[in-house]
Amino acid sequence: MAVIPNFAIDKNMSILVLGTVALDTVKTPCGVRKNILGGSAAHFAMAARFFVPVNLVAIVGEDFPKRYIDLLDKKGIVLTSLIKVPGRTFRWVGEYKGDLNTALTITTELGVLSLFKPTLTESQRKIEHVFLANVDPEIQMHLLKSIHTPRLVGCDSMNYWISHKRNQLLRLLKKVDIYVANDAEARSLSGKSNLLDAARKLLCFGPKIVVVKKGEHGLLCVSRRMIFSLPGYPVNEAVDPTGAGDTFAGGFMGYLAKARRIDDGAIRKALVYGTVLASFNVENFGAKRVCNLSNVEIESRIRRFRKVAAF
Amino acid sequence: MAVIPNFAIDKNMSILVLGTVALDTVKTPCGVRKNILGGSAAHFAMAARFFVPVNLVAIVGEDFPKRYIDLLDKKGIVLTSLIKVPGRTFRWVGEYKGDLNTALTITTELGVLSLFKPTLTESQRKIEHVFLANVDPEIQMHLLKSIHTPRLVGCDSMNYWISHKRNQLLRLLKKVDIYVANDAEARSLSGKSNLLDAARKLLCFGPKIVVVKKGEHGLLCVSRRMIFSLPGYPVNEAVDPTGAGDTFAGGFMGYLAKARRIDDGAIRKALVYGTVLASFNVENFGAKRVCNLSNVEIESRIRRFRKVAAF
Repeated sequence: MAVIPNFAIDKNMSILVLGTVALDTVKTPCGVRKNILGGSAAHFAMAARFFVPVNLVAIVGEDFPKRYIDLLDKKGIVLTSLIKVPGRTFRWVGEYKGDLNTALTITTELGVLSLFKPTLTESQRKIEHVFLANVDPEIQMHLLKSIHTPRLVGCDSMNYWISHKRNQLLRLLKKVDIYVANDAEARSLSGKSNLLDAARKLLCFGPKIVVVKKGEHGLLCVSRRMIFSLPGYPVNEAVDPTGAGDTFAGGFMGYLAKARRIDDGAIRKALVYGTVLASFNVENFGAKRVCNLSNVEIESRIRRFRKVAAF
Repeated sequence: MAVIPNFAIDKNMSILVLGTVALDTVKTPCGVRKNILGGSAAHFAMAARFFVPVNLVAIVGEDFPKRYIDLLDKKGIVLTSLIKVPGRTFRWVGEYKGDLNTALTITTELGVLSLFKPTLTESQRKIEHVFLANVDPEIQMHLLKSIHTPRLVGCDSMNYWISHKRNQLLRLLKKVDIYVANDAEARSLSGKSNLLDAARKLLCFGPKIVVVKKGEHGLLCVSRRMIFSLPGYPVNEAVDPTGAGDTFAGGFMGYLAKARRIDDGAIRKALVYGTVLASFNVENFGAKRVCNLSNVEIESRIRRFRKVAAF
């Protein structure tokens, strides 16, 4: 496990993300899109690539469109450990209503995800920045154990694992530096309704930093010596929030992987980058907006965000 | 109606608040309190008194305890227009569960509130800063018309009036400078689900500033030339959120009434003071915490808030 305070990153600035690559079918008040590129690792990678090289570790089926592989490749994402096997790709069908704050899952088809046993190349095992996006905590632990010398490890999970594999998740949390959870997950795993209490309880489970994502309402980040609260970036038009949390994590962890020192200032900046990346994500379906994003647009929105939140 | 940009306040720094003074019975996960001091004007006044003299305009019944009158008086609140008439005081019985974000109203007993026809003294009609806390918009309009030269007028409302007296509320909004609404009210009155869209639509109804309160998630403030987003102050223990919105409005409008110039900087500062006052309010039942608050505690939390939200 990494020691966070003030270490210098010198040789390996890549980041490795384990998670899902999926085909999403999404209905929102703005329309419907069928079988678009989705999944926790895909959204993460699309955001993290602005900061450091990204190695994506995931599984897809034979039905996974070549154009999405080409797209990920064109965006510079290293796909050595994106494996393709016989069977169907993981699919999620969901709907958002009204204020888009809650996803209604209509169907989940695991497909080849149920066969997933990630393996890394020798050079990938030397990568020091790792994000374990939402998959079975046993798979997350398996992957983490194959990393030689992790320096900064983040992880995400979901209510299903909190309910069904709580002990496995708690074992994993002892090994990670940063736990990223949404408000409902933080409350559920900690048993505390007050978010600050919840975040502090989660710190006791092992992570040095807990980030509680609150959707459009921003986030709360807590470490033993810091509390940081950030509003969401007010977007003009929210089209589809799918993947916003993973996009946030990609911007956040990507920035930290690039940072030379990880201190309170760097963490706050990383959270701001994550928030801004996530704000772009919701402006179009799936990963489309972040896929077509430029560094100039990101920096411009960072400046705008500072104005919006300064007091 | 006031002209907001950059006017200097010179002679009259008092604020007048119209609203309810109530006996609240509240159940939260932290306990139950019966017939405690509540109501929009009472909570507002308890917060605004830290900045300027407050004139409270409300009605209570014969059953209203003398100790609450004495308490308001002891806190320096001018009670000339708090009238006591035969009948029962307005009572609200409510409950909060889980994360305290939603109040469940069990009973509302209007009592003497149904007879309320506020009248002001001649000197009160000269007060230039006015807050029309949540009561019937026709009563709010009636009071506003009796003010000689209002310079800064804020108002609040609730979903009941948005549904039942929409036209009267819209007529009122043409005459106010600042409209303070919670997120559900903003969405309901504007017909927009995106909060930024909602706030902008509300600006078209007349106010120069719209403040959308998001409970523990902070606020969004929009004018024609500014967007400001502020997280909530993360409180250690939330006991009872009743009156937090009115306490926020008291801190916000109180600060503005005291400010010599009302520009973007003053508005942001006022929103921060309102947020901090509201954060104290939720730490105990009713108005108890704000009632026993000191200026030193307020300033200390303002500094802490800056640290928590700086990036």
